[in-house]
Amino acid sequence: MTFRNGLNSLLRPEDSVLVLIDHQPYQLANVNSHEPTMVVNNTVGLAKAAKAFGVPTILTTVIAERGGKLFPQIAEVFPGQEIIDRTFINTWQDQKVVDAVKVTGRKQLIIAGLWTEVCVAMPAIQAAGEGWDVTVITDASGAVSVEAHQVAIQRMIAAGVNIMTWLALAAEWQRDWARADQAAKVTDVIVQHVGGSGIAYLWEQQLLNTPVPTASVGV
Amino acid sequence: MTFRNGLNSLLRPEDSVLVLIDHQPYQLANVNSHEPTMVVNNTVGLAKAAKAFGVPTILTTVIAERGGKLFPQIAEVFPGQEIIDRTFINTWQDQKVVDAVKVTGRKQLIIAGLWTEVCVAMPAIQAAGEGWDVTVITDASGAVSVEAHQVAIQRMIAAGVNIMTWLALAAEWQRDWARADQAAKVTDVIVQHVGGSGIAYLWEQQLLNTPVPTASVGV
Amino acid sequence: MTFRNGLNSLLRPEDSVLVLIDHQPYQLANVNSHEPTMVVNNTVGLAKAAKAFGVPTILTTVIAERGGKLFPQIAEVFPGQEIIDRTFINTWQDQKVVDAVKVTGRKQLIIAGLWTEVCVAMPAIQAAGEGWDVTVITDASGAVSVEAHQVAIQRMIAAGVNIMTWLALAAEWQRDWARADQAAKVTDVIVQHVGGSGIAYLWEQQLLNTPVPTASVGV
Amino acid sequence: MTFRNGLNSLLRPEDSVLVLIDHQPYQLANVNSHEPTMVVNNTVGLAKAAKAFGVPTILTTVIAERGGKLFPQIAEVFPGQEIIDRTFINTWQDQKVVDAVKVTGRKQLIIAGLWTEVCVAMPAIQAAGEGWDVTVITDASGAVSVEAHQVAIQRMIAAGVNIMTWLALAAEWQRDWARADQAAKVTDVIVQHVGGSGIAYLWEQQLLNTPVPTASVGV
Amino acid sequence: MTFRNGLNSLLRPEDSVLVLIDHQPYQLANVNSHEPTMVVNNTVGLAKAAKAFGVPTILTTVIAERGGKLFPQIAEVFPGQEIIDRTFINTWQDQKVVDAVKVTGRKQLIIAGLWTEVCVAMPAIQAAGEGWDVTVITDASGAVSVEAHQVAIQRMIAAGVNIMTWLALAAEWQRDWARADQAAKVTDVIVQHVGGSGIAYLWEQQLLNTPVPTASVGV
Amino acid sequence: MTFRNGLNSLLRPEDSVLVLIDHQPYQLANVNSHEPTMVVNNTVGLAKAAKAFGVPTILTTVIAERGGKLFPQIAEVFPGQEIIDRTFINTWQDQKVVDAVKVTGRKQLIIAGLWTEVCVAMPAIQAAGEGWDVTVITDASGAVSVEAHQVAIQRMIAAGVNIMTWLALAAEWQRDWARADQAAKVTDVIVQHVGGSGIAYLWEQQLLNTPVPTASVGV
Amino acid sequence: MTFRNGLNSLLRPEDSVLVLIDHQPYQLANVNSHEPTMVVNNTVGLAKAAKAFGVPTILTTVIAERGGKLFPQIAEVFPGQEIIDRTFINTWQDQKVVDAVKVTGRKQLIIAGLWTEVCVAMPAIQAAGEGWDVTVITDASGAVSVEAHQVAIQRMIAAGVNIMTWLALAAEWQRDWARADQAAKVTDVIVQHVGGSGIAYLWEQQLLNTPVPTASVGV
Amino acid sequence: MTFRNGLNSLLRPEDSVLVLIDHQPYQLANVNSHEPTMVVNNTVGLAKAAKAFGVPTILTTVIAERGGKLFPQIAEVFPGQEIIDRTFINTWQDQKVVDAVKVTGRKQLIIAGLWTEVCVAMPAIQAAGEGWDVTVITDASGAVSVEAHQVAIQRMIAAGVNIMTWLALAAEWQRDWARADQAAKVTDVIVQHVGGSGIAYLWEQQLLNTPVPTASVGV
Repeated sequence: MTFRNGLNSLLRPEDSVLVLIDHQPYQLANVNSHEPTMVVNNTVGLAKAAKAFGVPTILTTVIAERGGKLFPQIAEVFPGQEIIDRTFINTWQDQKVVDAVKVTGRKQLIIAGLWTEVCVAMPAIQAAGEGWDVTVITDASGAVSVEAHQVAIQRMIAAGVNIMTWLALAAEWQRDWARADQAAKVTDVIVQHVGGSGIAYLWEQQLLNTPVPTASVGV
Repeated sequence: MTFRNGLNSLLRPEDSVLVLIDHQPYQLANVNSHEPTMVVNNTVGLAKAAKAFGVPTILTTVIAERGGKLFPQIAEVFPGQEIIDRTFINTWQDQKVVDAVKVTGRKQLIIAGLWTEVCVAMPAIQAAGEGWDVTVITDASGAVSVEAHQVAIQRMIAAGVNIMTWLALAAEWQRDWARADQAAKVTDVIVQHVGGSGIAYLWEQQLLNTPVPTASVGV
Repeated sequence: MTFRNGLNSLLRPEDSVLVLIDHQPYQLANVNSHEPTMVVNNTVGLAKAAKAFGVPTILTTVIAERGGKLFPQIAEVFPGQEIIDRTFINTWQDQKVVDAVKVTGRKQLIIAGLWTEVCVAMPAIQAAGEGWDVTVITDASGAVSVEAHQVAIQRMIAAGVNIMTWLALAAEWQRDWARADQAAKVTDVIVQHVGGSGIAYLWEQQLLNTPVPTASVGV
Repeated sequence: MTFRNGLNSLLRPEDSVLVLIDHQPYQLANVNSHEPTMVVNNTVGLAKAAKAFGVPTILTTVIAERGGKLFPQIAEVFPGQEIIDRTFINTWQDQKVVDAVKVTGRKQLIIAGLWTEVCVAMPAIQAAGEGWDVTVITDASGAVSVEAHQVAIQRMIAAGVNIMTWLALAAEWQRDWARADQAAKVTDVIVQHVGGSGIAYLWEQQLLNTPVPTASVGV
Repeated sequence: MTFRNGLNSLLRPEDSVLVLIDHQPYQLANVNSHEPTMVVNNTVGLAKAAKAFGVPTILTTVIAERGGKLFPQIAEVFPGQEIIDRTFINTWQDQKVVDAVKVTGRKQLIIAGLWTEVCVAMPAIQAAGEGWDVTVITDASGAVSVEAHQVAIQRMIAAGVNIMTWLALAAEWQRDWARADQAAKVTDVIVQHVGGSGIAYLWEQQLLNTPVPTASVGV
Repeated sequence: MTFRNGLNSLLRPEDSVLVLIDHQPYQLANVNSHEPTMVVNNTVGLAKAAKAFGVPTILTTVIAERGGKLFPQIAEVFPGQEIIDRTFINTWQDQKVVDAVKVTGRKQLIIAGLWTEVCVAMPAIQAAGEGWDVTVITDASGAVSVEAHQVAIQRMIAAGVNIMTWLALAAEWQRDWARADQAAKVTDVIVQHVGGSGIAYLWEQQLLNTPVPTASVGV
Repeated sequence: MTFRNGLNSLLRPEDSVLVLIDHQPYQLANVNSHEPTMVVNNTVGLAKAAKAFGVPTILTTVIAERGGKLFPQIAEVFPGQEIIDRTFINTWQDQKVVDAVKVTGRKQLIIAGLWTEVCVAMPAIQAAGEGWDVTVITDASGAVSVEAHQVAIQRMIAAGVNIMTWLALAAEWQRDWARADQAAKVTDVIVQHVGGSGIAYLWEQQLLNTPVPTASVGV
Repeated sequence: MTFRNGLNSLLRPEDSVLVLIDHQPYQLANVNSHEPTMVVNNTVGLAKAAKAFGVPTILTTVIAERGGKLFPQIAEVFPGQEIIDRTFINTWQDQKVVDAVKVTGRKQLIIAGLWTEVCVAMPAIQAAGEGWDVTVITDASGAVSVEAHQVAIQRMIAAGVNIMTWLALAAEWQRDWARADQAAKVTDVIVQHVGGSGIAYLWEQQLLNTPVPTASVGV
């Protein structure tokens, strides 16, 4: 058991692979840890950020013909991509998903899903024990209660799992605003999915292109 | 001072007019009563619902060349529509806005804006005293603190202002699901802006069109 | 506008009629104001209390073939009873429901349902304006957000609607523990649906029937 | 009992008089409804706003030789001004304070103080009964518990007292940003005492005076 | 329906009568709105304050042989006093209690008890309708849930009931610190039951009797 | 000290043994960390899940003749089973309980009880030091305060104890929905004790067996 | 770094020593993490429990002639005992205190004080590094903000400090209710300082000594 | 991985270096974890404390010409000091900042900034891996949500980062009130930036210099 730190512990697009698990209607119907609208928003933001950075993303559901299909807002980020349907609740015991991750050759494994305490916790804890560097994105996940969410996070930390929120991951992938191509893409995601920062950015852009007003009115 | 109740007190599309006030960057930058992403989401949902029901909507800002333009997500719902810029903080002392409302001939005046305690409270309280039937949509508004939001709501109630949340208004406008044309439009808004109910609706649609599975798996 | 007070304003079984509205899956799927398990528990407790006191109860749903049937836990309290299905979102504009209430000849109209801000608020506000003495049971209802729930309650208060919680209503119906027949039935409901008080009652019953222990141990 | 609304119900500098009551150490030592630093900050912001608009301000304490002197941050806004010390807990029964208010000839009486439920509630409720148009500034006040604060606010509302927060009052006094002299003063107060808005204003001023950057980095 | 305000609306010892209802084990066992230790502490503080000001206090329980006796901490404040045991849940329908109140000849009726939504709400609402000036002390009461407590308070406000917290009442009774005999008694109650203010008072007394230290140490 | 992770760290029915400790009236009477109704509900859900998976369950109380018997809702899940009564507060120092656990031959020891910080913490911490793989189910436990609950959880984590919530455990035991026999039993438990998911499941079942409606009404 | 667990890690009276630090007026005046009345109550309960179990208790203050004397409620538990006054903020750098602890020969060092993040954290962290088995009692401590309290707890956990709440410690010291002499003393402390459990205990005692009532009323 | 404890682990002015990161308008505009006014206040308090103790402070921003300049309240504490502007989001990958820290020769690296989960977390985690003794000041930082703030803190703890709040750091630097010169400076900072303690200190100073009043009034 060692501290997970140092420059290498920070997440990089070229070493990352994302698995989105069970963002489905049956699960969302009993999420009580977060406002469901924010769960959808954050997961789509995460998915678009992954796409912007070229991070391969595996999509998976559990018995979608009954529990409902993956949220279309997420599926639409990856048009035509296969969504792996499982019967295993624990994604990491589904060989097809594990193979899909392994084929990417990446070791920074990032997971988000519904519910935090079930469909996220099991694969995160198993994979961490198998040597993967696992990160869970808590605000693109959700649980049946606030306590279930927090207890699951504490359990995963005790399992050596790294935890983050989605915008922090996007910024960590970006790392340097001088990488201008990526920066433009990330900014698009922020404008669409981060209310406060997106509007602030648009204000900045407006003012930078505005001559100094001569009017003497106050704010 | 009488109770505001009875069938006539419920809001109808044909009698409603909506005024959206100061959904601008300077104001959003210090909203601390709500998650800013939800404020943007709810206001856009409200705007689209108004449009779906043919409710005329007045858009107004205060010194937009400095405090920033109306959120584009809202402006895009009403392409080409004029946004009335003011110096008056109290919208109801700006004759141009009041005239725009009066010309609609409607008396159910609905207001949302930033901040609840300033740009919403003043026009709501003034108009209520002038005989308008005023409704404030609290979750498409926001304040500099939770206390500022709640105190403003209590002040407006004491002024005879009606308060609602945006989805309640949309449902009240719809009133009867047998009004099928409107129902389809409202459902679109829900799918886009009400995470939990939108996903539940899509599940319902999926299952209704699915033959009964024969597999014996559980949940 | 007068204060609602005095002995006559308290609720009596013989003058009460209960309407349970839209306790259905589509609605529950986006209740975020309460733990859903508690909403189910409280509504069943309310239903059983009404039955225990002989209070007629009207059950109604909205498009149950799509939004889902009334929670079976509630339906089972009233075996064989018709559940009035509507297209009107506002129950009080559905003549069949209103007639069912009127035929009871009772004027203390009690309402609970999902969501507080839509399916509860509209009939409560309309009926209050038509002279009914309306009481809403807030903890057997639920809303899409805490704010939606609280704003709806404040709106209903401003409409002259009385608000209560379900156990308070049961106790008000009981009024005097000397009414022993009712007391036994209410106690059954408490044992089943009020965790803290039910267990306390069972403890009381156990200890009252226990000889004083002779052991000298502490607590 | 009538609704308090209409244009005349809004607060105007020329009709306002402010009374700050018992912002003293003994009282602050048991404020548990707010972060004490914010109580001090908000009260000083309120005092400076009053000064900026020429609103006369009465300062009063209760047995300051024991319970401690008025916070110096407030006293320094009004150098040399008398601070009326009382033995009456209810300020409005101290003739000296009432006379000081009456001599201003203003009827919009604004009160803030410690504690909300004692030193604010009593004079607010008494004065409201004597025909004053009373407004209490809740976030420049504080109570021994959150419940004490909220219950006092509800009691004062039932007494016909108007409630506001301090920044809302400053904006209501300003009313129109075209009043440039006042606007500049108010902006100074905001920069000093409203963290989020003050910094946002400084950013606006910086950007408006900055040529458009040519660098291609994102943010 | 009129606003309850003005000097006469403030509570005076010589016009007050206090009724403490059902502070018993069965009820406390399911109080979830407050920390039970604080409910006991606050009620004892209220009882001692009443005694200090010579306010007659009626003690009453419901079926104490089963639900448990009045908390001894309260009973001990009034040694030898009769505790009226009832079967009526609604105290105000028990003639013995009402007579005990009437014999005092006082009209400012103050009530606290368990639970807020049952044993407090019913007598408060009934008595308010019979012309009593009713005040409920919310923090010497408690409910089965936070929602039950808050909903009951809102219901009582709509019934014309005044609400306060216990320390606010004690200060209102005191009214003027120049009433030295009472002040000493109230201060004793504060030292025993108001943690923050009691300790602050003792500090004040210590420092006022201490020569100025000559040491140069900091805070 | 090593991270607890990997596939083997996940809980399996065949390796699990459950101990339910002191779910008794005296303890529940001062649970302030959770709604008592939910504590009862969750513990019964946990007990039924254990039964469904064939996980042996030990029931134990402390001085039940005084502190009250095990909640009957739990006892009824295991008709006729012995409930081990102790004087030791620390269950793990009661040889009879430890022997009952040891005889099962299982090493994944799962504990829930009242209070978290006393009757749960002591055996969990002791057993963890003796080589058991201990898991505490936090939402089938409860404490005298929120702080007591959270501090106890943090203490147990520092002792190497695993923490979970009850539904997460049931899902981990299930592991794969293809295990149809178990799935049916678990689904029964969910329908009875998980409000949001149970109702969602019933909706799914209803819709899957419903022909597509032809009506054109909206949601 | 090893897990702190096993039977030996539980606290025993004969190995414990308690240090109460800076429960003084200056510190309490800015405690915002807890209700101050509860901090006083809990610390006195802790002190009495220590006394009941014969656990030596060291009392210490910092510059009491200015910051105020130890709360008299605590001092009175140990009449005549020296209170060590310091200038060192970090108690563990004051040789007199450390010597007083060392002379007891006990290694289970228990600390509570004001503020958690300063006067508790420093000695706890230092002593833990010097080989003491340190336990901090969080609810007999307090901080300038909720964040300060929680961050300090997390910091101390990372330093290997054990955390508990006061009633958990008392129960751990008791360990077995069969130890009747201690049990009686602990029960006294509970009756005086644990509202919910004390009243429940008194109820139990009352009912056990009551013949079964013959009345047929419910509860 | 070892516990961070012992006397040497406490922070000393002579070994400390402070880095303040991105306290800028763009970042503050979307801080939702704290009241922005408190973030500004706490950071200025931290900066002044560092200055009072002679702790070198590095100031850095990211693309200040667009995201806005360092808060002037902070800059003014260090007049004329260079503010290092970066394009790297991760400060610790900016050689200029790292060199500025290294040149101080100090190893206790203290970091605060906006946002906790991005601009604070990355350098803290990287530096911790490179052997620095890193401390993050959480209440002089802020995040886009409460969850983002808390998750980042948990992540940093798992990386071996120490966490504190700003006043705790100031007190730890002071360590002994007998260090009178420093004490006076720290007291100045407290009076300006810690509302509750600053006012308490001023009261203490007032009372210590006041003859004992002879009046017999209470307080």
